Amino acid sequence: MTEARPRLSDRQRLAWLRLIRTPNVGPATFRDLINRFGSADAAIEHLPELMRNAGAKAPPRIPPVAVAEAEIDTAARHGARFVGIGEPDYPPMLRRMDHPPPLIAVKGNGAVFALPAVAIVGARNASLAGIKMARLLADAVGREGYAVISGLARGIDTAAHEGSLTTGTVGVLAGGLDRPYPPENAGLCERIAAGAGAIVSEMPFGWEPRAQDFPRRNRIVAGLALGLVVVEAARRSGSLISARLANEMGRTVFSVPGSPLDPRAEGANRLLKEGAVLVTGPEDILDALAPLTLTETPPDVSAEEPPDFSDAPPLIETDRTVILQALSPVPVGVDEIIRHTGLHPAQVFMVLLELDLAGRLERHPGGFVSLVDPET
Amino acid sequence: MTEARPRLSDRQRLAWLRLIRTPNVGPATFRDLINRFGSADAAIEHLPELMRNAGAKAPPRIPPVAVAEAEIDTAARHGARFVGIGEPDYPPMLRRMDHPPPLIAVKGNGAVFALPAVAIVGARNASLAGIKMARLLADAVGREGYAVISGLARGIDTAAHEGSLTTGTVGVLAGGLDRPYPPENAGLCERIAAGAGAIVSEMPFGWEPRAQDFPRRNRIVAGLALGLVVVEAARRSGSLISARLANEMGRTVFSVPGSPLDPRAEGANRLLKEGAVLVTGPEDILDALAPLTLTETPPDVSAEEPPDFSDAPPLIETDRTVILQALSPVPVGVDEIIRHTGLHPAQVFMVLLELDLAGRLERHPGGFVSLVDPET
Repeated sequence: MTEARPRLSDRQRLAWLRLIRTPNVGPATFRDLINRFGSADAAIEHLPELMRNAGAKAPPRIPPVAVAEAEIDTAARHGARFVGIGEPDYPPMLRRMDHPPPLIAVKGNGAVFALPAVAIVGARNASLAGIKMARLLADAVGREGYAVISGLARGIDTAAHEGSLTTGTVGVLAGGLDRPYPPENAGLCERIAAGAGAIVSEMPFGWEPRAQDFPRRNRIVAGLALGLVVVEAARRSGSLISARLANEMGRTVFSVPGSPLDPRAEGANRLLKEGAVLVTGPEDILDALAPLTLTETPPDVSAEEPPDFSDAPPLIETDRTVILQALSPVPVGVDEIIRHTGLHPAQVFMVLLELDLAGRLERHPGGFVSLVDPET
Repeated sequence: MTEARPRLSDRQRLAWLRLIRTPNVGPATFRDLINRFGSADAAIEHLPELMRNAGAKAPPRIPPVAVAEAEIDTAARHGARFVGIGEPDYPPMLRRMDHPPPLIAVKGNGAVFALPAVAIVGARNASLAGIKMARLLADAVGREGYAVISGLARGIDTAAHEGSLTTGTVGVLAGGLDRPYPPENAGLCERIAAGAGAIVSEMPFGWEPRAQDFPRRNRIVAGLALGLVVVEAARRSGSLISARLANEMGRTVFSVPGSPLDPRAEGANRLLKEGAVLVTGPEDILDALAPLTLTETPPDVSAEEPPDFSDAPPLIETDRTVILQALSPVPVGVDEIIRHTGLHPAQVFMVLLELDLAGRLERHPGGFVSLVDPET
């Protein structure tokens, strides 16, 4: 996918949308299915059999063609489009994260993704000083040619977007692209998309964001940027999760200090203790990121080699049992499973894929997997 | 001096006081004179000749015996005493700095110097939050067995002393021990000295502090402590000078962060960028210093070996000319002068001592010296 970057045909896009909208098909499973079966269409054909193999009681709930077509129509009515991971207008930075979303809905000016980017996030109940700081930083890095990424939340996020409306900002939604949250930021979404920026979401149109959707949103906020700046963050806050995710992806984490007596600074100060770059002004961000903008785009994370299926012996039921026995709720490396069971990598790959589709497998960063505890 | 720690006799103490109160005799010169002549009395005898040799127009202004006796009487009336560097009750931490003051005036409970110590300094025009923080930190480290050192200034310094009155605090004055500055802190000085702490000064009784005396005061504040905490500090402030001095002495520098939009946090945040330990609570200080309190007291800095005078050829006028020519307003290492001139170390030592006494030499950390620019 990396060299040619061909566009998906309408038929392919429809199949991609159906596959990614199928329950238990996340970004990693999607990639494995494409690697194994060559196309989304072929994967969809095999899904029922794979899930049966893993002991799933019900057949996969693959959205019918009409439902996926309706979502594509809805997107078009909203002036949005779906962009696949292999396509030329897919954000290059997203490809550099673990398990990038295979298909995202985008509305606005896609050229913003070509800019080097800084994420600026923080507290919803921000202080006036925090809001001023976020706007000031966004404005300054924007003028220096950076896009500003944020999560469209109240407080710091809103200030970050507003400070970079004319230079280019990207708002990432936790729900569908037609479901701005908080609702009062609907106008901000329109202004972002009508200007130099864009709004994006990996969630279906019509999806109302729930609490558990925000960490997924934060992952994309971090993934889109070279570095992530936390302006104000309480002790347990989404901004700290974003910082952790950014750090895990190898992005630079920045933090604006505050008085230890201000609870809104507690998380930000803790990040500084843990090694975040201290920010008192935009030059601290620019100085740290400038060298990164000069480097070539590294290879796509998603372009990892699938196993060679051609010489794999056929799977028998004993193989599934052996692999299941090697798994537990404690994460274990896929490599280790291959070594431990002595099975062909393609066999292990397939059994894990089946378990994943049946909702029995959890995937962790670094190629680790664990069994989903049926109790939880 | 390091093993026995004998007390000075009254006669020695008087001579030490006369010698250190002589203009152009600073701590380094004092040490060199004692090293060369064996005692303060003998040094005083040689001063006129040494200054003549260096081309001084006027004889040295050595305080007469009566004047020094009067200062000792004044000290006694104030309930204070003079402590010499070799004596058992001289603060052990001070011995570990470059050029410790040979004689200090102390009032209060000398046992406080036996405690491991933390200096807490900051802005005079501190915010209420800053004052609260300083008091809280001082109280907490005090309860953990640390003495709190500060400079008796308004704002942060006052809060630091007040937070540690009952556990032990040391106030260092920039003027004489009988000249508290600011005057409204006279009561605080009394409370410190009457309780578990002490006030100290290297300046003469009756000395009104001038602007240039505060960096000398800050040097002792930093020198008395294992680490120095800056609570609030503007861009150019005495607290930053204290932090630099502490760093040069190998003391740990701590800093409490603040909002970048608050000018009172600018200096503190800059220290964090330069590597100061970020402090949001007392445990940050305690965690960093605890390992240091377990180590043996390192050898006294002041105990460096003087050159061997016994085999030095007598000085002739040409030697002085050669050494003068090797000097300039740019600091140069004493070792380098010895190598460059080919003279005996004792000869170089003596000529530098003469120039020092004549006010023509400036000494810098690390054994560097420069010629005083006659224009300034």
